[in-house]
This record gives sequence, C-alpha cells and structure tokens, in this order.
Amino acid sequence: MRVLILGSGSMAEQHARSFMAEEGVLLAAAVEPNAERRAVFGAMFEIPKLFASLDEALAWGEFDACANVTPDAVHHPTTMALLAAGKHVFCEKPLATSYPLAIEMAEAAEKRGVINMVNFTYRNSPALQRAHALVEAGAIGEVRHFDAAYLQSWLVGKHWGDWRTESRWLWRLSEKHGSKGVLGDVGVHIVDFASFAMASDIVGVESRLRTFAKAPGDKIGDYTLDVNDSVVMTAELANGALGTISATRYATGHANDLVLNIYGTEGALEVRTTAREWSLRICAGADIDTQTWQEVPLEPVATTYQRFVAAVKSGENGVPSFRRAAEIQRILDLCFAQDEARRLAAAAPAATA
Amino acid sequence: MRVLILGSGSMAEQHARSFMAEEGVLLAAAVEPNAERRAVFGAMFEIPKLFASLDEALAWGEFDACANVTPDAVHHPTTMALLAAGKHVFCEKPLATSYPLAIEMAEAAEKRGVINMVNFTYRNSPALQRAHALVEAGAIGEVRHFDAAYLQSWLVGKHWGDWRTESRWLWRLSEKHGSKGVLGDVGVHIVDFASFAMASDIVGVESRLRTFAKAPGDKIGDYTLDVNDSVVMTAELANGALGTISATRYATGHANDLVLNIYGTEGALEVRTTAREWSLRICAGADIDTQTWQEVPLEPVATTYQRFVAAVKSGENGVPSFRRAAEIQRILDLCFAQDEARRLAAAAPAATA
Amino acid sequence: MRVLILGSGSMAEQHARSFMAEEGVLLAAAVEPNAERRAVFGAMFEIPKLFASLDEALAWGEFDACANVTPDAVHHPTTMALLAAGKHVFCEKPLATSYPLAIEMAEAAEKRGVINMVNFTYRNSPALQRAHALVEAGAIGEVRHFDAAYLQSWLVGKHWGDWRTESRWLWRLSEKHGSKGVLGDVGVHIVDFASFAMASDIVGVESRLRTFAKAPGDKIGDYTLDVNDSVVMTAELANGALGTISATRYATGHANDLVLNIYGTEGALEVRTTAREWSLRICAGADIDTQTWQEVPLEPVATTYQRFVAAVKSGENGVPSFRRAAEIQRILDLCFAQDEARRLAAAAPAATA
Amino acid sequence: MRVLILGSGSMAEQHARSFMAEEGVLLAAAVEPNAERRAVFGAMFEIPKLFASLDEALAWGEFDACANVTPDAVHHPTTMALLAAGKHVFCEKPLATSYPLAIEMAEAAEKRGVINMVNFTYRNSPALQRAHALVEAGAIGEVRHFDAAYLQSWLVGKHWGDWRTESRWLWRLSEKHGSKGVLGDVGVHIVDFASFAMASDIVGVESRLRTFAKAPGDKIGDYTLDVNDSVVMTAELANGALGTISATRYATGHANDLVLNIYGTEGALEVRTTAREWSLRICAGADIDTQTWQEVPLEPVATTYQRFVAAVKSGENGVPSFRRAAEIQRILDLCFAQDEARRLAAAAPAATA
Repeated sequence: MRVLILGSGSMAEQHARSFMAEEGVLLAAAVEPNAERRAVFGAMFEIPKLFASLDEALAWGEFDACANVTPDAVHHPTTMALLAAGKHVFCEKPLATSYPLAIEMAEAAEKRGVINMVNFTYRNSPALQRAHALVEAGAIGEVRHFDAAYLQSWLVGKHWGDWRTESRWLWRLSEKHGSKGVLGDVGVHIVDFASFAMASDIVGVESRLRTFAKAPGDKIGDYTLDVNDSVVMTAELANGALGTISATRYATGHANDLVLNIYGTEGALEVRTTAREWSLRICAGADIDTQTWQEVPLEPVATTYQRFVAAVKSGENGVPSFRRAAEIQRILDLCFAQDEARRLAAAAPAATA
Repeated sequence: MRVLILGSGSMAEQHARSFMAEEGVLLAAAVEPNAERRAVFGAMFEIPKLFASLDEALAWGEFDACANVTPDAVHHPTTMALLAAGKHVFCEKPLATSYPLAIEMAEAAEKRGVINMVNFTYRNSPALQRAHALVEAGAIGEVRHFDAAYLQSWLVGKHWGDWRTESRWLWRLSEKHGSKGVLGDVGVHIVDFASFAMASDIVGVESRLRTFAKAPGDKIGDYTLDVNDSVVMTAELANGALGTISATRYATGHANDLVLNIYGTEGALEVRTTAREWSLRICAGADIDTQTWQEVPLEPVATTYQRFVAAVKSGENGVPSFRRAAEIQRILDLCFAQDEARRLAAAAPAATA
Repeated sequence: MRVLILGSGSMAEQHARSFMAEEGVLLAAAVEPNAERRAVFGAMFEIPKLFASLDEALAWGEFDACANVTPDAVHHPTTMALLAAGKHVFCEKPLATSYPLAIEMAEAAEKRGVINMVNFTYRNSPALQRAHALVEAGAIGEVRHFDAAYLQSWLVGKHWGDWRTESRWLWRLSEKHGSKGVLGDVGVHIVDFASFAMASDIVGVESRLRTFAKAPGDKIGDYTLDVNDSVVMTAELANGALGTISATRYATGHANDLVLNIYGTEGALEVRTTAREWSLRICAGADIDTQTWQEVPLEPVATTYQRFVAAVKSGENGVPSFRRAAEIQRILDLCFAQDEARRLAAAAPAATA
Repeated sequence: MRVLILGSGSMAEQHARSFMAEEGVLLAAAVEPNAERRAVFGAMFEIPKLFASLDEALAWGEFDACANVTPDAVHHPTTMALLAAGKHVFCEKPLATSYPLAIEMAEAAEKRGVINMVNFTYRNSPALQRAHALVEAGAIGEVRHFDAAYLQSWLVGKHWGDWRTESRWLWRLSEKHGSKGVLGDVGVHIVDFASFAMASDIVGVESRLRTFAKAPGDKIGDYTLDVNDSVVMTAELANGALGTISATRYATGHANDLVLNIYGTEGALEVRTTAREWSLRICAGADIDTQTWQEVPLEPVATTYQRFVAAVKSGENGVPSFRRAAEIQRILDLCFAQDEARRLAAAAPAATA
C-alpha cells in the first residue's frame, strides 16, 4: 500500500511516522510547495518522490492512498481531486469548514467507492473504545443522562507557553488566522467522543458560545482575538438520553482532559482521557446501592492510522468515516448558527432612519 | 422571639428542633388541622398553644414569626395572610408554585417591612459559603466557565428504598400528586447553589427536560408517572460566565451529590456537598501551571434557621430572601415554558379537517 | 333526533334556533341551574323537559345528542360525562382550555364511536368552503405562500360599545374573568380558517403576543387588563407553504374581518369574510400575466348545525371534529408557551442573593 | 459638486441621469474596467474623465462624491477606499454583504465626517414619506399592530419574461451567482419601508425562509436554484407594536407591490406603492366607528439622489445613512442565521459512527 503524504507540518510528521510503522505500507511520495521544507521532510522519512503540488502528484499517480494533512480550508479541494482520481483518503480533522462541503466529500467518496476516514485521534483511547463496547453490550442498561467536557487551561496557565506572545497560540484566537475557536479546535473531538461512546446520534442541540475580553481592544499585534473561548450545549440523543457538552480553554486544573460521565438504567460509566492517559470506571450491579466504583482494565486498541490501513487492505470502509465527520460538522455549524442568531438578535438597533 | 410552626410533618419537626435550639427563641404555637397529629406534635416539642387553623392562630396573634412548613401549593395563601398580619416569615422551599405568585409574596413582604427568608438548606454547606466568599474576594479572578449538577440515583438503586412500591417516592413522579419532577424537587437547589456560589445572576437559559418510560403505560397504581426525571440547561451569568446546570435521578454512583466546578481567569474551585458532608478544593497561583489542587479548610457556618433568628433580632433582612426565591422560580418557570413549547412544537398535527 | 341544549345564554339561543329549524330535530330538553333563566329559556323554545343539572338530564337520558353551550372551562367535564353516556356531542369552541384536555375528549369520543363536532362558525362561510374546494382541485396549483388575519377594532372605536365601561367587553380583557385574549377569542377561528382553506396542517409556528397598556395600573374596577390584544405568528404548512397569521383588536377600519390571501404555483385566491358577508376572488390562468382578479360566484353552504344533524343521521362523523379542534388547541397552547418563555427570559433577574 | 460614477451598468445609468439632472452637479468622472463599456458609458453622459480602476480615480482625486454602483460584494472595499480619501459616498443597496462589514463602513464614514447615504429607492414614494410624517405627528395615535409585504409574482407569470430561460432572472435564484434570494433582493426594501414608516426600530424578529422545488434536481443549466423564494417574519418594534413582514416571488395578482397596513390607538393607515405608483388611505377620527377610509392627497418628494446632493451641499448627513443600512443588514443577517439554525437542527443525522 503506497501512501502519499500531503503536507509537511508537525501533524504530517506524525502521519508519516504512524504509517511507516505499519507493515506493508510504503511512504511513496509527499507534496509540499516550499522547496526547503519539502527537502527536509523528504529526507526525514526517506520518501522517494517529492512534489511541489498535488496536481503533479496526481499526474504521476503511483500511490493508493493519501494522508491529507493540509490546512483546514484546503481539505475540501484537495480531497475532491484525490477522490476524482480514485484514491483512498485519510483526512485530518475537521473534514471541511462547513457541513455542505463535508457532506459533498462524503457523498463523492461513497460514489467513488474508496476508503474515506478522518483522524479523530481520541478514537485511539482504549477508555473510549471500551466504554462504547460496554454501552453497546447493555452493561449499564439504557442510557438516560450524560455530561461531557473537553477541559484545557492554556488561557490561564503557562504550562504550554504564553498565549499572549506565541503565534502558535495566538492564531487559535483569531478567525482571520484560520481558527474557529475552542469549538472548532477541540469541540469537534468532544462531540464525536460523547456520541460515539454512547453509540447514538445527537438529535437536538441548544448551544451558547462566548468570546471573553482578553486584551486591550481585543487585539494583540496582528491578531484580532474574536473567536469563542468557551462553548456549552445541551444535547438530546436518538436513544432519548439528555446531557450537556462543553469545551473551554479556561479550565484551570486541567491541561487537556476529556471527561465523560454516562448514566444508564442499570449502571454508570466514568470515562477519562488525555492524549496519553486514560481510565474507565463502572458502577453497576450490586455496587449501585453502595455507590461503589470499579476500575475497568483496559487493553490497547488499534489507532486510526492502523484502522485506515486495515480498511484499505480489506476494501471495507472503517470508522470514523467522512459521513461521520460530516455529521459532527453539522452539529458545529448548528452551534455557530444558533450563536450568530443570538448575537444578532441581542445587538442594539444601529439607527432608526 | 416567639415562633409559630405552621405544619407538623417531618420537615416541621426539623424546623421545630432547629428553632428551639436557638437562644431566645420560644416555640409559641403550632397549627395542624388533624387533631391527633396536632396533639402528638405539640407534645413532642412542648408547645404551649395549638391551633386547628392559621386563621385561629392569627386571631390569637401572640407570635412574632412563622416557620411555614405547609405543602408547596399552600405557601402562597398562608404567607400572604401572615404578611398582612405583620409577621416575619421563614418559608420552606419552593416559595411558591409559580414566579408571579413568588414575586407577589416578595413584594408584599418588602412593603410590610418584615423579615422574609426561604429555607434553601444547601446554603448551610460550609463549602458553598466559602466558595462564595473566595469568588467575591477575587481568589480565582473573573469567573469564565462552570458546570453544576445535582446527582441522585434513586430511580436506579434501592439504597433509599424502592420507588416502584413506596408512596414517598411515587408521589415525586406524578404531577397530580404535587410533584414538578426533578427540576422542582432538587433543580431549585442546584440553580440557587450555582449562582450564589458565583455571586452572579443567571441572565440566559436554554433547557431540556425529559420524562423517561418507567412503567407499562407510564402508570403505577394511581400514580401517572409524568414529571421530568432529568433536566439539563445552558446558562449565562451576568458576569459573563458560561456554564451548564443539570439534575437527574439516574446518576448511578451518586446518592445525593451537589457538584460545582468554577473556572476563573486566575484559578478554579471544586465544590462538593451532600446534606451532611462537604469539601472544597482550589487550584490557583503557582499551582495553575502544574494542575495541582489544594484542599481548602472549612469552618462551620450559621444555618438558615440561625440566620433567620439573627435577622429578626437585628431587624435587617437576611439571605436567601423571598425575592431571591422568586428569582429562582423565574428560572424554573422559564425551563418549564421552554420545555412545553418544544414538546407542543414537536407533536404531530392531530387532524387536518 | 332529540337534542339537549346545555346552557341558556345568547349562544344557546342561537343553537336552539338553529337546531329547531332542521327537519326531524326535536329540542327535547335543556339544562340551566338558574331557575328563572331556565323557565324563560324553556318557554322561549317550548322545550318539554327542563333540568337544573346535567346529572339529572343524564339520569333521565331520553335524548340522542347534546349541544354543549357552557362556559369554556366547563366543556371538558360535561362533554366527558355525555360521552360516557354514549351521547353525540356538538360543542361550542374552544373545545377545551388546553391541548391535553382537548385530545382526551377527542379520544374518548372516538373510542365511544359517537358523533363529535365543534362549532367553528366561520366554516359556514361560502367563501371559505369554495376556497378549500378550489385549492383541493388544484385551481391555483401547489400552495406556496399565504397571509391570514382576523381584524377587529373594538379597542379603538365605539361601534360595538365602549369597552372601558361595558362588562361584556371588559371580561374579554381579563384572564381572571375567563379570557385568553384575542388569541383565545378569535385567534382560534383564523388558525382553523387558514389551514382548512389550504387543506394542510400547520407544522411549524413562531408567535409573539402582546398586552398593551390600556388603563392606569392596567386595571378598570375589578378587571385586571392582562390578556393579549394582538398576536402574530409565522407558520409553515405540511404542504410546504409559508405564511403569517395574525389577530388584533386594534385594526381600525375593520369591524370584524377575516382576510386570507393564498398564493400557489398557478394562481392566487383572496378570501374575505365577516359573520354575514363574504367574497372570493381568483387570479389564475391567462389573468396571471395581467394581474387581473375575477370574482368567484358563491352558493350557500350547509351550516355546522346542519352538518352535525346530517352526521348524526348518517352515523358518519363530520367536520370540524373534536380531533380537529384539539389540533387547533395545540397551536394555541404552543403560542402561549412560546410567549411565556420569551417573557420569562426577558424579565430582569429579581435578586442575586 | 463633482461626482464620480463607479460602475457602468443599467443602475449606473440611472444614477448618472439622476445626478446630472441636479443643479450644480457635475459628472466629473467614471470608473469601468472594460474599455468598450467605459467608452460607451462616457459618451452616453459626456463624462470628461474615464478610469479603468478606482485606484486611478483616487490618485487623480478631483471629485467630491462617488455614486457607488458596483456589484454588492464590491461595495465594501471600494467604499472603504473612498472614505479613506475623504470622499462623500452614495452607495447602492445593500450597503454590504454582512452586518459586520456594513457597520464597519458606517463607523468609518462617521469618523471621517463625510456624507454617507444608501439608495433605498422606495424612500422616494410620496406615500411612504407622508405615512412617516403622519405617524410622527400622532395622526393615528400610538402604533400597535402592522403588516408589511413585498409582493412579486415573476416565478408564476411571464409578465416580466420567463425566469426558466432568462439569465437576468436565473441569477436571482442562485447563491453562486450572487443572489441572497427574495430576502436579499427585495426583503431589504420592505424591512426598511416598514420600520421607517412607523419611525421605530425593530427589536425582535423570528423568521422563516423557504426555497421551493422549481426544476428537476433544483438546477437549470449552470444555475443551482438554492436561494429563498419566500420569507416571513414576526417583528416587534421599539414602540411596542407587533407585526408581520413578508416577501415572496409567488404573489400572483401582484407584479411589484409594497403593501403596509399600520394600526394605531387612534386610527389606521394603508400604504400602497409600486416603483411608479402610490396611494395612502387613512381611517381616523369620526371615521373609525364607521370603518370609513379617506384618500390622503400626496405631493412629490425629493428623491434619494436629490437628498444626497442636498446633504453634500449642507454638510449635514441625510437619510437613509450607512448606519441605517447597517441596521437593515443586521435584520437580514439575523433572518439568515435563524433559518440556517433551523435547517441544520432539522437535518437528519448523517452517520452514527
């Protein structure tokens, strides 16, 4: 299986490392417009073919699948070109910048019959996969109530550096620089995380977003600090469960925690995950009457990279699919539209005549 | 200070015990229509005067304050009569069954210039009072994000008995029997708890309520199981903070827990309380960068009973006031109206012609 | 066919007159608690049996159908008793004071298999019936857009008397006196009128209600002027059409006008009706390109009274049925819930502590 | 006063004709990138200086004011450049493609202290101006209720040509071709028309938009038929009035009618306008009790072009100002956001895993 790496940033390095570690996978080529970075990236992973553009790579054509690690707004045009050429695509999240674009990509991939998956990395958490399996097996009965949160605190502490002076953080606060705030950044993860764990679609949402004052005139240098810092939503699932989903960059005491509590008719689960650590606790059966929680032993799970490779080999699409990513984008777009409607409705009239 | 106890149930016993323990307080009289229970109650607390009706007690008139421990729907007419007679009133929660009635009571009490307070018992938690003081003192900077939950699990476990067969639980599931579900029962507490801790008003709410199928035909004997079992809401505070508030009777692993996390610009607080235990943790200052939490030592606080006595003695109204209880009722009524609008909008049309 | 008249007010007289004019119909009995009015009413229509209560009439039992002309809040208990006794029921509008009560009545009638109809009097308009038939026949193609309004002006002019001094108007401005405002009074007609004309269910609604300041302190004598004076709504129909529905008591220039414009893919209709006059115009075919309207000739139609008699005779239920009236009540309840949620959300917080 | 005409289409001809007819106004220059059209336009109006770009015209600089008749999306960058150079600007509607851009333009113009006006052409209707003056003078008391509609029927009839085959109509049905549907096209007029007539801001809106199926696959050639064909909204004004506003391209029987009914506490107004004809009727005073309408005699009013010239001469800004146009854009953006939120919420979930 010959893989084309599209992009050369730090996430592209992660993709390259992950795919080259898989048996039967060859990093066949890479695309990077900048000559210097292209050369460095090629050398780093000993990639035989290097191209300055996707068009050139497609003209050459000798690859089966592409890891699309371009900027968010570039996912759509590049993926559509790859799909037209019949290539399997593993795309970084978010799949697209809007639901209509995302669903167009899903439909194009399905029509072409190629493997299409998205890199929702928290699917790699053994705690999440085990929770999903336990819910599906009925270990806690029917799900009734839940709360889910993605908790970061880099707007308060300096453990990840100083957002006031470092561009790697400042761009995440500015729409002009490509950010859709905490909702676009990590909200996408927690929405997928929660509904996948509970194996049920989100059928109703009411959200609130907020951009807090963080600097004089809401500006730091060229960066207008205009994107959302916190988001909260109520959610109703197809299985009837009611819950809350939230994400914030102000959660002091939490560097990068995904927290999910699931309450069913016959027990409850506590799912905890960071990028590298995870745990799962259950309270069920006789433990219910004493409020006793038990640790659930966890085993390693296949990564999204491994599952993409397996899907290409088997010819059967894996999860999370483009269609799933489009569904998550629907929820995000809905949150943004609700927020915009609320803000515009609350704005004072500008002039009477 | 002469106190009239209006009612003779188990909560009335709690009031009687609490007030008689205070220096300078005399249990002057009690009102209970049922002769047998009146006699038992009078004997239990050695109360000198016993009446079959509030009218008789008011005609006699030799008391300064009343502890109103009647059923919810009776709070309004009895309190209005007491206020008209110039008596101080300490009322059980909820103050009234609707916001218009509650605000009418608050205005009447203020106009008459008497002490008016409501028994939100979780105000007795040292963890809540300390959290409130820390927020007011700026210990965590400006509040940005929070989540609050009231977690019970008596619909899942049998640690409090079996709701399927015991009337003391069944009535809480039926509107006809006087219940407004988990929102009316404990939602009132968590809404007060959260906004008091953060010392800020709730200025925006979007809620969802849910009644789950629990028995064939949603009936057990005479009880129609029609009230809400779970409620979730997003909330925005006057100070700009965004958060979620929820309450459920399905939270396996929690018998009766109030959980509140508050995140500010300079630190965070974790407030935990049951009816008898509490704890408070803080992450602030140098601890922020290492996500280190410290236990906050807690000292005993005055109870609502003690604060009512102090208010009567000083002549200055205490908290939580009737007006505060009316504000909480406004939030509850709003949740119910949003829920009803949502349900009616979702209902299938009944007939075209 | 033996009819019992339940009630003796001016609407009851209208029912009595209408039913006695039909062939084969006998006014068998009447119920009125007040002895004097009972005697007068009985004499006026030469009714053989007079009862002081429905219970007595039911014990006697020698009637087939009942015209229920009681106050709004009494429709439900009396109708349920009549249905239990297997009587056909023709009920004044509104069928009930809430959707749950109304749907309970519809289900009870259907289960019992009796004729059940509601007196939406504007169904007697030949213009409405002809418009309905033309839409059903496809005369204007598929419906796309509409606007409907019920226009009264008795709050501005004195053509119907002075609402400031006459109790027959003042009660219509006060909830305590049984009014649900312009929405309950005539909104029920225009909602039925519009959706019946277009032969399609209302599947989406967003409403606004308003009570205007009309007197110092919003009071005149014993009347608190607290009900809605104007209502507006957007509506979406099952057939996809979009439109507006409104009702007001401030429409100077209109004493009592129902106005409905229906726009389809192949033409348009203008429906105009008062209680006694009506007209219908159409613009279709070649007239479309010149915006030319033609008067549609109208013929008399059967009244609701006549259709009820026919239904009882044939044994097949007629329209508007109880179920239809329940559907209209669903829309009204939805408007009230949306309005209450909006008002509570907009209310200033009452107290912070 | 030296005017630069920016653009050369049919609306630009209208501007040129209108401005050259005013005393003391010189058409000093014009900008048009296409050489041929530039020459034709220059010759048509004997314009002394012709430029291929705004930059060249600004470098030359010898003009006082600019009539901006560029495509909608170009209004913002060109106007911002003109304002930076201190030129007065008369801009075609809509001022910008979004509220944030429009308010930025208003603020820039105000900061620079130049005349800034927008060409809402229905302000030229004597019926509208007279209605506004009558409302301001209290001729119908306080406004309570209203309905406003912009009625076209070119999707049904062929009086303006065949939309299925003519590009001048097809582009108006396709977002990709620059259209925002009936709301962007004429909704902007009726929203301005209604609130200007009543001299009050719109403080609350709930809207519904609808795109109807009009061709197989919703496509005709290159045109995707995806924009709204009908829009309805409820609206609440700052003066407390409640009303509906709607616009549709399906209103058979109306080629291009603006219809506005205003109901106050002491009378009512009926405003009717097309691009070339208008009428105004009033029912007030003694006429109220007989529902008698009187024709209001109308006199010619100054056009927006004339008012812009007068504003430049006097140095005092006229109406409608940029700020007013921004306010109208706020309402439109709000309608679009509400519609998008509703559509996304109603969409079926795309995939569970």
